[in-house]
Amino acid sequence: MCSALLMLGVVAPMAFAEDGYDLWLRYRPVQGEWLDAYRAAASEIVPPAAASPTLEIALSELSRGLGGMLGAAPPVASEPTKDGSLVVGTPRSSALIARLHLDLDRMGAEGYVIRSVAYEGHRVTVIAGTGDVGVLYGVFHFLKLLQTRQPLEHLALSSAPRLSHRILNHWDNLDRTVERGYAGESIWDWQKLPDYLDPRYTDYARACASVGINGTVLTNVNASAVSLTPLYLRKLAALAKVFRPYGVRVYLSARFSAPLEIGGLKTADPLDPAVRAWWRAKADEIYTLIPDFGGFLVKANSEGQPGPQDYSRSHADGANMLADAVAPHGGIVMWRAFVYSQNEPDDRAKQAYNEFVPLDGKFRDNVLLQVKNGPIDFQPREPFHPLFGAMPHTPLILEVQITKEYLGFATHLVYLGPLFEETLRADTYAHGKGSLVANVVDGSLFGYSQTGMVGVANIGTDRDWTGSHFNQANWYVFGRLAWDPSLSTREIAAEWVRMTFSNDPSFVDPVVGMMMSSREAAVDYMTPLGLAHQMARTTHYGPGPWVSGGPRADWTSVYFNRADAQGIGFDRTATGSNAVSQYAPPVAAEFSDLKRIPDDLLLWFHHVRWDYKMRSGRTLWDELVIHYSDGVRAVGDMRRTWASLAGKIDSERYMQVSTFLEIQEKEARWWRDASIAYFQTLSHRPLPAGFPPPEHDLHYYETLCFPYVPGHSPLPQEKCQ
Amino acid sequence: MCSALLMLGVVAPMAFAEDGYDLWLRYRPVQGEWLDAYRAAASEIVPPAAASPTLEIALSELSRGLGGMLGAAPPVASEPTKDGSLVVGTPRSSALIARLHLDLDRMGAEGYVIRSVAYEGHRVTVIAGTGDVGVLYGVFHFLKLLQTRQPLEHLALSSAPRLSHRILNHWDNLDRTVERGYAGESIWDWQKLPDYLDPRYTDYARACASVGINGTVLTNVNASAVSLTPLYLRKLAALAKVFRPYGVRVYLSARFSAPLEIGGLKTADPLDPAVRAWWRAKADEIYTLIPDFGGFLVKANSEGQPGPQDYSRSHADGANMLADAVAPHGGIVMWRAFVYSQNEPDDRAKQAYNEFVPLDGKFRDNVLLQVKNGPIDFQPREPFHPLFGAMPHTPLILEVQITKEYLGFATHLVYLGPLFEETLRADTYAHGKGSLVANVVDGSLFGYSQTGMVGVANIGTDRDWTGSHFNQANWYVFGRLAWDPSLSTREIAAEWVRMTFSNDPSFVDPVVGMMMSSREAAVDYMTPLGLAHQMARTTHYGPGPWVSGGPRADWTSVYFNRADAQGIGFDRTATGSNAVSQYAPPVAAEFSDLKRIPDDLLLWFHHVRWDYKMRSGRTLWDELVIHYSDGVRAVGDMRRTWASLAGKIDSERYMQVSTFLEIQEKEARWWRDASIAYFQTLSHRPLPAGFPPPEHDLHYYETLCFPYVPGHSPLPQEKCQ
Repeated sequence: MCSALLMLGVVAPMAFAEDGYDLWLRYRPVQGEWLDAYRAAASEIVPPAAASPTLEIALSELSRGLGGMLGAAPPVASEPTKDGSLVVGTPRSSALIARLHLDLDRMGAEGYVIRSVAYEGHRVTVIAGTGDVGVLYGVFHFLKLLQTRQPLEHLALSSAPRLSHRILNHWDNLDRTVERGYAGESIWDWQKLPDYLDPRYTDYARACASVGINGTVLTNVNASAVSLTPLYLRKLAALAKVFRPYGVRVYLSARFSAPLEIGGLKTADPLDPAVRAWWRAKADEIYTLIPDFGGFLVKANSEGQPGPQDYSRSHADGANMLADAVAPHGGIVMWRAFVYSQNEPDDRAKQAYNEFVPLDGKFRDNVLLQVKNGPIDFQPREPFHPLFGAMPHTPLILEVQITKEYLGFATHLVYLGPLFEETLRADTYAHGKGSLVANVVDGSLFGYSQTGMVGVANIGTDRDWTGSHFNQANWYVFGRLAWDPSLSTREIAAEWVRMTFSNDPSFVDPVVGMMMSSREAAVDYMTPLGLAHQMARTTHYGPGPWVSGGPRADWTSVYFNRADAQGIGFDRTATGSNAVSQYAPPVAAEFSDLKRIPDDLLLWFHHVRWDYKMRSGRTLWDELVIHYSDGVRAVGDMRRTWASLAGKIDSERYMQVSTFLEIQEKEARWWRDASIAYFQTLSHRPLPAGFPPPEHDLHYYETLCFPYVPGHSPLPQEKCQ
Repeated sequence: MCSALLMLGVVAPMAFAEDGYDLWLRYRPVQGEWLDAYRAAASEIVPPAAASPTLEIALSELSRGLGGMLGAAPPVASEPTKDGSLVVGTPRSSALIARLHLDLDRMGAEGYVIRSVAYEGHRVTVIAGTGDVGVLYGVFHFLKLLQTRQPLEHLALSSAPRLSHRILNHWDNLDRTVERGYAGESIWDWQKLPDYLDPRYTDYARACASVGINGTVLTNVNASAVSLTPLYLRKLAALAKVFRPYGVRVYLSARFSAPLEIGGLKTADPLDPAVRAWWRAKADEIYTLIPDFGGFLVKANSEGQPGPQDYSRSHADGANMLADAVAPHGGIVMWRAFVYSQNEPDDRAKQAYNEFVPLDGKFRDNVLLQVKNGPIDFQPREPFHPLFGAMPHTPLILEVQITKEYLGFATHLVYLGPLFEETLRADTYAHGKGSLVANVVDGSLFGYSQTGMVGVANIGTDRDWTGSHFNQANWYVFGRLAWDPSLSTREIAAEWVRMTFSNDPSFVDPVVGMMMSSREAAVDYMTPLGLAHQMARTTHYGPGPWVSGGPRADWTSVYFNRADAQGIGFDRTATGSNAVSQYAPPVAAEFSDLKRIPDDLLLWFHHVRWDYKMRSGRTLWDELVIHYSDGVRAVGDMRRTWASLAGKIDSERYMQVSTFLEIQEKEARWWRDASIAYFQTLSHRPLPAGFPPPEHDLHYYETLCFPYVPGHSPLPQEKCQ
């Protein structure tokens, strides 16, 4: 004891609390060889002569970053006086930059260049944007070079976003609950707005800008009309004012029935003149308060939400009405393609295509159709959505889910980069080979006038913003891919690790390895070989392959797994629902062919006998068991890898990750065991040699009960005995 | 512009973020004259020889505090080697302390001494506890001496708690909503328990221990039986393990109907043998997991909660059943006296007395009757509860509300010390003059075997814990008064300001002044002259003196204000409900007598004509208007005072307080104007000369609508047009 107490005399320095609040913008001091080089290469700052709030923020960020990394921010000069001078601004704000003729015009309104140039005998670095926000983006890029220990000589970087709309979707309710949120409550403290502006709002906008996100839908797609009342619009305007200089526009979800609920009208029929006038007046009211309001996001006629079909009108009728209301102000409407018909169809995967393809070309120019990456609902793996490639005359924007509703909530380490990349690189064959989803989304394939990518945010009041340190990477990779869908998500992971944790290669390399394999691990322990939608009912917490009954079949697991005594999988070929026919012929041909379809989509498209011989030579049953087990083993590997990295980063974050990996391994085993226990009651087959049986019997897993699982509003108030 | 940008070269040092997370335990560096003195007086630490988790925490805290304040923690020695040596421990853990014969036994299990002694020629300071937790309390006290710049010479301090149970009541639901919480969501992240122990749990226990709080009820009095299931008991046990070394015991609220809901029984009748057996088994199960579990808190037969009266049993029957279940393990039952009968009575203020006084002496020894400070419900001002002094054979513990349900939520600066003190110093006359509520509560008046004070917590996930920086003071003053109800709340305010903000007298004095007058200001702008329960329905946000109708009359404002054309106030004298008769005769006589009753309780006990001549010589109506206006003016004074203090503390906290005071002034004016607008429709009297009329007409105030006001679960989903 006494020796332990004697050690207490050594007090840990009261340093930065490594609680994750700083995200990837940590700017910790640079050590060693790089410090002198960076000090020399960032010796002074030459700001622009003309001011704007955005330029002030960019300059402040540059000083903050360099001050943190180099010990002190460089002095400011009115023109370059020495080597290493950093010249910052736009051609409009800086005569010096104007004189350099950087050919910025072709970079678009948000682009920037970072270039090493000679100026009156000095080696100078220019950080220049076409517009002010480009300067801010450029500053973040320049700082990233230091954060990731890149050389600052001979820089000739330029960048411009390939998508125009890079938007977070917050599924935040006005009561501060977050639908499918696992990171605390909503960061929007509506009660204290517009008077009190939590500093976190600024930090949020800064983080978004640092990865190029330029819009945010503040309210849940399952919308409340209250957000459109004057009381809340004033609150929204206060947030918009905070976000504006960071280049982040605010959007609202629009409840289609708002004219009834807050407008005193008797209908919300989109062709009714009074309804149209109400929305026009509402748009005018909003734009008076928020001149750069982005527009509306709408979930209509889906999962019980109101919509134009309530009045026998089409989605185009509904979207166009709202589009007409915001068009005079330059606003857009993002209309979600995620719809359910009221009546259960033969295959839920086919609905969006069936409803929207006939409407191609019928939408206003400022309507963007928002399409999830896959045809069901953000599953660990889905094939790409068949709408991509099928609507040449309607701009489609890609919706991905950053919050891990189906991928382990807060505590599972699952880096979503590979999932997003898999979709973006999928080939639709719409215009022959090489017609990637990315080419649809970036507008190059069909010449869309508007382009975009949106992500359902994983952000909440948790101190680390996202419920875990590694979940921050999913916010980060979303922003980076929305800026440029062709980026490598492995390289994005590497830069994120370096900025967030450490530049030590003995840390970076294994951690990037963990991240890159983490999504496949989750697929394996949850839904291998093309299975999907096998989670517990309502809460989506843990496995539930036995889930059946309830309000509609296409909300159950058995609907999707179709497991029976013969085999497992959903026949979506011509002998089944024929969902394959929604894809271009070469894709449809591959997916239809049991011999050609990749293993990882097998059961999505085929009902396959348990004894079917896989490419591996094993039976489907054995292969299934092995995949589940591989998933568990992969998490064990992550735990061992992480354990080997102890001491390489701060203990606060190390410990949290370590505990979360423990939880993940426990839950991965739960998924494996519960799934095998259930499917074995149908396959009646033994486990392959050497694979242990489930820890408990099926009844145990079926009767596990978890009340108060987060992510619901209201929570199911089940009682568990 | 350019000058502004040039200034950016100066980077603020990346110092401590003053976000309030550190509460009053900030340990910032001591400057100037005090530094040398303190270094000399805390030159080394002599820890005890024997270990315990609590002693390790105490020593760690001492090093942390001294390290922070003095630049480095003193070295550790095995015995005193120089002047300024700090000898720490208990007689059992430290032979040196045992030899000093500090007469610790009379201090009780939790007491401590801090004493300057001579030891082998050195001037030494001893921080000694009877038990380990006393050492921890002593360390916090010693550090406070430095934090508040007190001399460390000739110390002869000793302290022991005057109440045995000093307990926070969290009205936290298992879905993390907090009933009447205005500081974010519940800090208990049940989903990740027991696996993940958020470091905040440790910080919470530490903060509690620093003010002597030794228990916490983790769950809402409107209880869920789920908290008693094995799943949740394992989570509770994990928290208990974190809190244990800090001397903080965990308690649960018990839902009376749990035997039906999770026990599979057909009744919850407290005299049913199966029910009694179920609770005994449940208690055994809990104590197996948590050997020092504190016991149960019960809200029964109140506001719709189940209870023994559902089976025609008495509160004593119900409480005693639970008491018998926990008695073998040393547990207690806190039974709330806050009850409503199902039928509306003539006066809600009389119910608790009428129900409980007949039961005096019928409770088990380990039942504590938990009584709110006043007979209604935590109003800005109430007379003391008539049960105090009326139950000599039943230990009464005092319940106060730290969260500001009726006092402006997060944003109003209202220091509750004077409110608590007013109750504690009220004279019940139960045994003649000087029979203070404090003497009831500390057990001295009736020789209670158990004593306690509980506070409804104001704690949530907000970074500052309590929704505002000044709300921290209410957590602090609760702990200090529960330790010693005779303390001066002005002195407590002063020490809190010094620890939390600054020792600069030019800051401390005006801020203590603001705090001490803040509660009376709130009484004035909300419910002056003895009015009560005048807030908006359900949400309790803002004024609603016109509220009438609804499910029961005694939930309305008009029930309580009784305003009519003649006058205003609730006649509780013999001509009315005769609630005065529940007080001892000298108190009843004073309250009954219009000439003797203090102005500030006038309308609580009397219906008074608008033209009644007050002591001031003014009419009641004029006096009422003046009080409302005084409240608004007082908030304006606070704003001006605070504005004069700019620059004396960090800008982060300064700015938040400044904005919150703006909100408070706006809302104080709203209270004044809405109340006057309503009452004027009844009094038909002009405002006194020079007092401006309400800004809007009554209709405006009556139709204001605020959906999604925090503090509800579920929130009222009202739509406002």
